[in-house]
Amino acid sequence: MKKVRIALLGLGNVGRGVCMILNSNKEEIIKRSGYEVEIAKILVRDKNKSRGVEISEDLITTEFSDILNDDSIKIVLEVMGGINPAKEYIIKCMNTGKHIVTANKMLIATHGDELFEKADNSNVMFKYEASVAGGIPIINGIDESLTANKIKELYGIINGTTNYILTKMECDGLGFDEVLKEAQDKGYAEADPTSDIEGYDAQYKLAILSSLAFGTKVDVDNVYREGITNINPIDMEYAKEFEMVIKLLAIVKEVKGKLELRVHPTMIPKKHPLANVYDSFNAVFVKGNAVGDLMFYGRGAGDLPTGSAVVSDVISMLRSNVDLENYNSVVKNNLWDREISDIKDVESKFYIRATVLDESGVLGEITAILGKYDVSLRSVIQKGKENEKGQVTIVLITHKTTQAQIYDSCSEISNLNSVSKIDNIIRIEDFK
Amino acid sequence: MKKVRIALLGLGNVGRGVCMILNSNKEEIIKRSGYEVEIAKILVRDKNKSRGVEISEDLITTEFSDILNDDSIKIVLEVMGGINPAKEYIIKCMNTGKHIVTANKMLIATHGDELFEKADNSNVMFKYEASVAGGIPIINGIDESLTANKIKELYGIINGTTNYILTKMECDGLGFDEVLKEAQDKGYAEADPTSDIEGYDAQYKLAILSSLAFGTKVDVDNVYREGITNINPIDMEYAKEFEMVIKLLAIVKEVKGKLELRVHPTMIPKKHPLANVYDSFNAVFVKGNAVGDLMFYGRGAGDLPTGSAVVSDVISMLRSNVDLENYNSVVKNNLWDREISDIKDVESKFYIRATVLDESGVLGEITAILGKYDVSLRSVIQKGKENEKGQVTIVLITHKTTQAQIYDSCSEISNLNSVSKIDNIIRIEDFK
Repeated sequence: MKKVRIALLGLGNVGRGVCMILNSNKEEIIKRSGYEVEIAKILVRDKNKSRGVEISEDLITTEFSDILNDDSIKIVLEVMGGINPAKEYIIKCMNTGKHIVTANKMLIATHGDELFEKADNSNVMFKYEASVAGGIPIINGIDESLTANKIKELYGIINGTTNYILTKMECDGLGFDEVLKEAQDKGYAEADPTSDIEGYDAQYKLAILSSLAFGTKVDVDNVYREGITNINPIDMEYAKEFEMVIKLLAIVKEVKGKLELRVHPTMIPKKHPLANVYDSFNAVFVKGNAVGDLMFYGRGAGDLPTGSAVVSDVISMLRSNVDLENYNSVVKNNLWDREISDIKDVESKFYIRATVLDESGVLGEITAILGKYDVSLRSVIQKGKENEKGQVTIVLITHKTTQAQIYDSCSEISNLNSVSKIDNIIRIEDFK
Repeated sequence: MKKVRIALLGLGNVGRGVCMILNSNKEEIIKRSGYEVEIAKILVRDKNKSRGVEISEDLITTEFSDILNDDSIKIVLEVMGGINPAKEYIIKCMNTGKHIVTANKMLIATHGDELFEKADNSNVMFKYEASVAGGIPIINGIDESLTANKIKELYGIINGTTNYILTKMECDGLGFDEVLKEAQDKGYAEADPTSDIEGYDAQYKLAILSSLAFGTKVDVDNVYREGITNINPIDMEYAKEFEMVIKLLAIVKEVKGKLELRVHPTMIPKKHPLANVYDSFNAVFVKGNAVGDLMFYGRGAGDLPTGSAVVSDVISMLRSNVDLENYNSVVKNNLWDREISDIKDVESKFYIRATVLDESGVLGEITAILGKYDVSLRSVIQKGKENEKGQVTIVLITHKTTQAQIYDSCSEISNLNSVSKIDNIIRIEDFK
């Protein structure tokens, strides 16, 4: 029986999952990898913190050097998160020839390129399946199974918290604030939910997926981002009338030779497979020029699902038929330069909800302005009763148009005396 | 630029897809694999047949020995199908150190074990992603990405023809024969549709998936099989009332230490992700003890999707960081012996539709017999008007019970004078 010694940097949620899996699925891992995987050391900040998993005290250390200087440790799992000191630790480990598995989306999204190159130069393997969409094997899926394809489009529901919130809003008709509070109470949303609800988390993940799918370097800042805080149950209701639902989608498309990169609430047809991804589940929908439509669906977070991705990366290294001590890196990640579209030029269909005076001529004023900006309408709906101020809600659905045209025209429309407010603007994606 | 010479055995649907992809995605393949992939030879039966793809005549041969004896050919793609001579050709190629990619489900399902061993002993790589579910990377998904898991259950919609037929029946309310004829006219179903509609195709594929997911050898004959020919639009209607749909599911579960292996029409909840897999799409839903619920969705057939899987297997070989001339096989496939459940002992909930006399006491007689066999009922529905013979339809939904209990009790029930016919028995899977 061959044995491999590994170390963990961090013992939070993911680290606990890894320990549980290595323990409970020990026999499977031995049979599948040909190795007994032994945890040699676990780096923590606080030795006395309770971990929710049984770990021998001897394994716990607060000294990174205990891991770095132990030549018997061949693979290091970085499950501490954040940029510093994770990045420094990874680089130091690579320098000593240790192979790395990481679950760190922020680090890969912001410094992935540098780390991939470092791994290449250090002849170590570097895997990061767990950094996007938890247990869903989307990194391996793109990197191993779709290599025969030109990927043209990718759409992801890659933030579980926002999908949970939108599901509750859609199915129970509740308001955003109410659902957020409930989600926080249940531990589904963080005390500071900004990273999730404002789309930052999805933005990081989309940068990683886009880089891989399009063989290029995508900066996080290249990804346009809108959160879900402005979504109202009323919008959900209107969506239903159009047989649509609202999801926070992370989208990358190649259009006219440029990449469109964006995270925003999106109305999608109820019949699309992504529309039926509920609760905290994640899914990534890919269109390849050979494979056609493909979707991966599963748990995007959690100790065991994310741990599953980390441990599978380890097993993949062990099974890779290479000498762990003399590995030669073969594949470069940065294959093409790709131009990124300015979000102003990105075309969508749009849903616009506005509060206007219930007077004749208002719609004429609005459509005149839209016409001036070359925005053409697919439908207009006026709904509900006049409120006490004599106002009604109207909903406009446009044909394909750029964001610039929509924002400019809506800005002018909102200055009309007859228009009280543009309440919401949401993109529509019909996958056509 | 490194170059690798490959050969194709066969130039049908899948072979054409492979040629098209190697041509149209040439640059991507070079960048991702580091190799220029050159087709050296293509074996066909009839040189003069038109192929729907542009191929230089020099490449086409009717002599297998042209490929076998060409030492410059390193990888052979078997896309001819069938057992003979595909198996003989593969073994001969392995003997000369050629790596093999196959799309042949029948061959893998019936002789996979022998071929895996042969590949091991010959130190060649042997890949078969395209053999199940076309473009969906389910083989790689299980074999690479879920290795950290004990897989407990797997449910597949892995036959596109039957899913297309059931979709049409469900959505348009048409009868089986009518839809089958339409599918045949459109080329979605074969002139002899037996392999699809009787579940043989799914049976082969499930044998492959089960072997891989449970690390064991599953014989095709171990898989219980029922086709969809007995499904009636009436059953679809009843399913709707229970918020269910009917799909042809391929199922493998570990229950009480034994494997249950079966392909049959199944009622599943409308809300389950598999219920929303429509038309000729395929999907495989997996439950792992770490990853939780996971689903892969996509095109299960077609020249380009299946070609995508074949070419990705080739690229995977090229990127595997091993010397193609001196590869040492590392992983064994047959890891565990697993006991297979007798289908008679397999438990499900059942839907039973029967035509009975509209008389008092009939239901009492039926439930008395069910009680004798320990079958307990969840609900009974009597529907529709009495026909001219004084008969009505009743639908029974049982709690979990074995097939033996159901078949034995239904056999006795059908002998009752008041019972004209047991019209249908369909298993229910609620994923609980």
